[in-house]
Amino acid sequence: MGKQEIRYAAKVSLDKPAAEQECLHAIPSYGTIKNNEVVKIECVDWTGGQIGNNDSADDVRDVDLTKIHYLTGPFDIETAEPGDILIVEIQDVQPLQDQPWGFTGIFSKDNGGGFLDEIYPKPAKAIWDFEGVFCSSRHIPGVRFAGLIHPGILGCAPSPEVLSTWNKREAELISTHSHLDRVVAQPPNPQNVHAGLAPEDIKKKVGEEGARTIPGRPEHGGNCDIKNLSRGSKVYLPVHVKGAKFSVGDLHFSQGDGEISFCGAIEMAGVITIKFTVMKGGMEQLGMKSPIYIPGPVQPQFGPGRYIYFEGFSVDENGKQHYLDATVAYRQNCLRVIEYLRRFGYSDYQIYLLLSCAPIEGHIAGIVDIPNVCTTIGLPVDIFDFDIMPHVKPEKKDMGSCAYASS
Amino acid sequence: MGKQEIRYAAKVSLDKPAAEQECLHAIPSYGTIKNNEVVKIECVDWTGGQIGNNDSADDVRDVDLTKIHYLTGPFDIETAEPGDILIVEIQDVQPLQDQPWGFTGIFSKDNGGGFLDEIYPKPAKAIWDFEGVFCSSRHIPGVRFAGLIHPGILGCAPSPEVLSTWNKREAELISTHSHLDRVVAQPPNPQNVHAGLAPEDIKKKVGEEGARTIPGRPEHGGNCDIKNLSRGSKVYLPVHVKGAKFSVGDLHFSQGDGEISFCGAIEMAGVITIKFTVMKGGMEQLGMKSPIYIPGPVQPQFGPGRYIYFEGFSVDENGKQHYLDATVAYRQNCLRVIEYLRRFGYSDYQIYLLLSCAPIEGHIAGIVDIPNVCTTIGLPVDIFDFDIMPHVKPEKKDMGSCAYASS
Amino acid sequence: MGKQEIRYAAKVSLDKPAAEQECLHAIPSYGTIKNNEVVKIECVDWTGGQIGNNDSADDVRDVDLTKIHYLTGPFDIETAEPGDILIVEIQDVQPLQDQPWGFTGIFSKDNGGGFLDEIYPKPAKAIWDFEGVFCSSRHIPGVRFAGLIHPGILGCAPSPEVLSTWNKREAELISTHSHLDRVVAQPPNPQNVHAGLAPEDIKKKVGEEGARTIPGRPEHGGNCDIKNLSRGSKVYLPVHVKGAKFSVGDLHFSQGDGEISFCGAIEMAGVITIKFTVMKGGMEQLGMKSPIYIPGPVQPQFGPGRYIYFEGFSVDENGKQHYLDATVAYRQNCLRVIEYLRRFGYSDYQIYLLLSCAPIEGHIAGIVDIPNVCTTIGLPVDIFDFDIMPHVKPEKKDMGSCAYASS
Amino acid sequence: MGKQEIRYAAKVSLDKPAAEQECLHAIPSYGTIKNNEVVKIECVDWTGGQIGNNDSADDVRDVDLTKIHYLTGPFDIETAEPGDILIVEIQDVQPLQDQPWGFTGIFSKDNGGGFLDEIYPKPAKAIWDFEGVFCSSRHIPGVRFAGLIHPGILGCAPSPEVLSTWNKREAELISTHSHLDRVVAQPPNPQNVHAGLAPEDIKKKVGEEGARTIPGRPEHGGNCDIKNLSRGSKVYLPVHVKGAKFSVGDLHFSQGDGEISFCGAIEMAGVITIKFTVMKGGMEQLGMKSPIYIPGPVQPQFGPGRYIYFEGFSVDENGKQHYLDATVAYRQNCLRVIEYLRRFGYSDYQIYLLLSCAPIEGHIAGIVDIPNVCTTIGLPVDIFDFDIMPHVKPEKKDMGSCAYASS
Repeated sequence: MGKQEIRYAAKVSLDKPAAEQECLHAIPSYGTIKNNEVVKIECVDWTGGQIGNNDSADDVRDVDLTKIHYLTGPFDIETAEPGDILIVEIQDVQPLQDQPWGFTGIFSKDNGGGFLDEIYPKPAKAIWDFEGVFCSSRHIPGVRFAGLIHPGILGCAPSPEVLSTWNKREAELISTHSHLDRVVAQPPNPQNVHAGLAPEDIKKKVGEEGARTIPGRPEHGGNCDIKNLSRGSKVYLPVHVKGAKFSVGDLHFSQGDGEISFCGAIEMAGVITIKFTVMKGGMEQLGMKSPIYIPGPVQPQFGPGRYIYFEGFSVDENGKQHYLDATVAYRQNCLRVIEYLRRFGYSDYQIYLLLSCAPIEGHIAGIVDIPNVCTTIGLPVDIFDFDIMPHVKPEKKDMGSCAYASS
Repeated sequence: MGKQEIRYAAKVSLDKPAAEQECLHAIPSYGTIKNNEVVKIECVDWTGGQIGNNDSADDVRDVDLTKIHYLTGPFDIETAEPGDILIVEIQDVQPLQDQPWGFTGIFSKDNGGGFLDEIYPKPAKAIWDFEGVFCSSRHIPGVRFAGLIHPGILGCAPSPEVLSTWNKREAELISTHSHLDRVVAQPPNPQNVHAGLAPEDIKKKVGEEGARTIPGRPEHGGNCDIKNLSRGSKVYLPVHVKGAKFSVGDLHFSQGDGEISFCGAIEMAGVITIKFTVMKGGMEQLGMKSPIYIPGPVQPQFGPGRYIYFEGFSVDENGKQHYLDATVAYRQNCLRVIEYLRRFGYSDYQIYLLLSCAPIEGHIAGIVDIPNVCTTIGLPVDIFDFDIMPHVKPEKKDMGSCAYASS
Repeated sequence: MGKQEIRYAAKVSLDKPAAEQECLHAIPSYGTIKNNEVVKIECVDWTGGQIGNNDSADDVRDVDLTKIHYLTGPFDIETAEPGDILIVEIQDVQPLQDQPWGFTGIFSKDNGGGFLDEIYPKPAKAIWDFEGVFCSSRHIPGVRFAGLIHPGILGCAPSPEVLSTWNKREAELISTHSHLDRVVAQPPNPQNVHAGLAPEDIKKKVGEEGARTIPGRPEHGGNCDIKNLSRGSKVYLPVHVKGAKFSVGDLHFSQGDGEISFCGAIEMAGVITIKFTVMKGGMEQLGMKSPIYIPGPVQPQFGPGRYIYFEGFSVDENGKQHYLDATVAYRQNCLRVIEYLRRFGYSDYQIYLLLSCAPIEGHIAGIVDIPNVCTTIGLPVDIFDFDIMPHVKPEKKDMGSCAYASS
Repeated sequence: MGKQEIRYAAKVSLDKPAAEQECLHAIPSYGTIKNNEVVKIECVDWTGGQIGNNDSADDVRDVDLTKIHYLTGPFDIETAEPGDILIVEIQDVQPLQDQPWGFTGIFSKDNGGGFLDEIYPKPAKAIWDFEGVFCSSRHIPGVRFAGLIHPGILGCAPSPEVLSTWNKREAELISTHSHLDRVVAQPPNPQNVHAGLAPEDIKKKVGEEGARTIPGRPEHGGNCDIKNLSRGSKVYLPVHVKGAKFSVGDLHFSQGDGEISFCGAIEMAGVITIKFTVMKGGMEQLGMKSPIYIPGPVQPQFGPGRYIYFEGFSVDENGKQHYLDATVAYRQNCLRVIEYLRRFGYSDYQIYLLLSCAPIEGHIAGIVDIPNVCTTIGLPVDIFDFDIMPHVKPEKKDMGSCAYASS
């Protein structure tokens, strides 16, 4: 015995465009992983390297959203077949050693947008430096916290039937919401299709039929952006095609519940260590329609009394009453935290960035008391290096500035 | 010094109809509480005693919803004035000693309804026996847990201006949603008005203008149904009128995030110990629009790895795609848990009751990945006396039955 | 069904001397409890009411140590026989409603003593007021915390063989340690024997052979003073005699690991709710020599980062090196905390009292690195209403005084 | 900006004997670290590579204890002077990437020994494989847990005065305990002195006066073996010489309270990331005699109800009563856990190894109830892949074997 390192199933380069890297969206697959094998998989950040470690948000403003979500994989998992479940144990997630930083962005309302873009339409950015388990940002001083590091996206490929269900139901949404002044969903898009080394006809088919990876979807998970899917978690994923075709990417050093600014986690390039186990016939045994997971044991703990909880209701900022709308309530909830924290000298954009990536707890409290939903957001006070408790008189400090775009 | 008990600011009787008890909805107020005083306040259950400890849900089916939410109070808090904040420290909550049981109900779709009433329209009920910090139910065997005991409702009275805002915006909702086959909000209602000893003209005014207590509301809190507002929590409440006019009621032995069956917590009569402190000019100092709170330190802890987390997406049970609708996602999320637990022999109604009252954790995960919201529900496995982990092959057991209504 | 209170197996009076109360040390027993029954049992404080709610420690100085540990019971548990295990589920512990206060004492070195009596020989006292789950003391300002409420003593009666083993081995200790200027153990003592209504010959026998309840003992538990044996805990107790003869007492509102000042917990009169279950043949099945327990789920949580941990080593205050002596290390450990906290204005006696009763965590760290044991004490910072973290420059405040004896 | 890795202050080789590596015990120092700098420091395992990844404990039996504790350093920390405090923030600890395994050993009673060597005198060993945050061992099947990774040793160099105090007091212990059939402390030892590139006269002086690193010591910390000193912890270390002369080593993937088998942690070679900050005049400001620390926020959490707690008393295995001896109580406590776990098929040596390295919680419960100390050990049940709760009837399984020495 003696030395024995864990195998890398894929390595990425930080010096090459994502579109040129063979292990990203490899078609038909980027190699095979054994049942019960543990491997390391490297991932680029979700923008494929479009965002730089600097003090301008021009790159965020100009991000090309047809060139994102370059996932590593897919991988064939031996013995996996439709109806099985792929158990994914996340044994570790780490930033790439030679890129110990990440970013949080607010997209322009005109290019990507976010949860509060009606109120905060401008692009903005914060760079986060990693210090072991901690991170801090020169763009949001006074804050430092341990990351709840996790992948934003993981899942197995859809079958043709599942894919066609997706395309159909999202097309319907688009067609019935054309009156809205918003992009409500993104259909397949031939522009900048990345399909690895696939031949042209496959590439074309991908462009015409391939589902966009922006949303998570009930049938397979995908971009769920679950902040607690951290080290030690075990995810149960439905298998829809032979070999499972597992992909992973969009690694986050940390995220708040909701990931509200859309590019809201602390996005990073990194490496994830996974053990893959096939549970034969698992979908029927578990009666599973959507993935489930069991969190790992090593989440940062603050103690319940070290949170301030804010309440949000489904009455919007114009005073309009909505009917049991948890989305409206959660948006109001975010605004309540912004109002609270701006008293200390932070700009609204800094707080918007912070709520996106710090480990805030977003809960459904009451969802049946017509007409109001009540949601709550728990803000951990120990991520601040000064006392933000409500009994303390706030002092407006010079909190510098997050990065903005040039005008 | 020596013996010195805490003063009871109000006591209720279990032998008298709620409508006849002087301390409930006393107008103009049921006595005065000093700034910094600690008092005990007794409360009836939120149905005012309409539900019995038996094995039939007839009482749930026939509940008179004009006779509920009999709150204890209001109390005048000395020195409190509009613009202040009333700090409410919940020092303890206990069931009444001579009624050591509570109930969870599913209202009939035709009389109250609930979060899943399109799918589960029938009335049902579970009785819970209290065993110190624990509770268990003969109607849902195999389950036992420590209560996260709390008040469903607390708040200060609205000013006339606030009240008129409420009535106006909820009336608008009702008028614009008349096409829906649902009650979307409840306007003031003269039927069974309970206004204590108020003279007839006041009673009439209350019937015509008084807001219903069903919804929590952003301006004062109210029926927020926040499961973590338990022993040791500190709530910061806006004061809108002189004396604050604080009321409290709807005590819960336990509740799950969402309180999904509407009569969903473990409803009980009980006593709450509160310390009241006035924070002069607090609303401006805190920039407060809605209440905030700091949880107590004694919540039951299971450890992160002792939850199964389920995922929910905003695609409804008919396969229809909704646009970033967290309410739809949370409903699907509940259905995923029901599908999982029914494999052990529980009926769907038993699980619906259980999800309403057990300490499930309902989170917003991703709320920006168009068009899907992803919510998660964490189900604590240690509330079951058998192993429900996904690696265990489920065995269908005889789980008895919850209480149903006679037909 | 309907109303149904839990049965009281014993009630105490606060107006009668402990020695006159029938339910304390009743011989042969104070009634029978069914297998699987839940009962409430009231207990006097461990001094039997000798200590008053006042500002003098004269009562502590003059305490009569032959008149303490009046336990409630024993109770016969139906079906319990030698070799069984009695499972004791502590469903709740509460102070008596009409005595919402407790005390912590430092005994005089000449009458009881304590862990640090060589350094702090004087009697002292702090009175604690209960505020729901919290407590605070006028004698130690700036401190407030949630109690980890528990019984200091519970256990089943020894058999004659076990009793004789105890008396023999403790007599040996006494005889071999007569050179020490200390009481090292207390033999049976006829003075002030309390044996309920037992006839004189039995009383005499008790006085001559009955074990003192001061120490916990491996064969049955007894006065273990385990701070985490709180609400919801389940204890597995060996049964040595028919009927088990279970006794309980010495209730604590809170205690620190070690209970260092001897009368160190927050001692109180109270009521404990217990479910008793007999596990037939349990001692053999569990291979049990000493009790085990499983803590309840509702302990106060501070989060790991909200403790300051101090280190103690087995080099005593005179610079003498001891060989792997954890007791010496823990004593030094306590002194380190006293030195730290006195910088804020507290007297050493105040801190000694505080370390005895606040939820400090006392750990064995390394016990094999010859010649030093390293112990650690975790001091929760959130029990203070000012910031005691080491990066904060301490300010000496007026911290008043604990109660001392008149001279 | 852009890429910017953290500087390595020292790198070790796995292919060279520890005694030949320049960064270990470098005299006078191995370079300088700036105030507020973050660096990575690599360390060999504490035996300097004497133990192999194999199935024999011959290497453990034959370990050369004059060739251990090769610490990395010392490092000069800029601006640090006697009387200052060196704040050491442990930002991360990781195993070396190309050696993803560690070991736990039981030393022979004749060569090193351990806490239970009177009862278990034979050498034994378990190899642990690292799987991200988890570890498991082919020598102790059925067990897997997340590591609470930490350094066993860190500290600053003693001044000549401090050193002379150590030598004097430990020599006294040795001289007064010569009647014992045990090594009670280890004096300076010229054999195999490792003093880096120091000239011969210095080497000789080190051999004659240099303190052995086996014990932690109150004046500077050292080999404290505190299991919770994990990722994110902050240690406050007294500075006794100019430049502080900080050393670190003896990294542990995990350890139980007490590290009872002496070579009891999961010993590993690894890398630690530290931020160094000098607190000028800190010793006086903090009144510090021994180090203090604040734990990091990312400890594994099991929930309080997921432990079985065992009790230990100061009556030894021969039935002899000791006077308030916490060391005796803790030894008995360990034996109680061994008796419990052997019912499942584990050998006593397997359990002894497991208690040494798994995250067991060792507490002082009561330390004043003469003549017995009561300690408790909490055993987390979730590290087992089968149910060890006391209500479950144990089944003796084939648990294989740990590694033993050839005879």
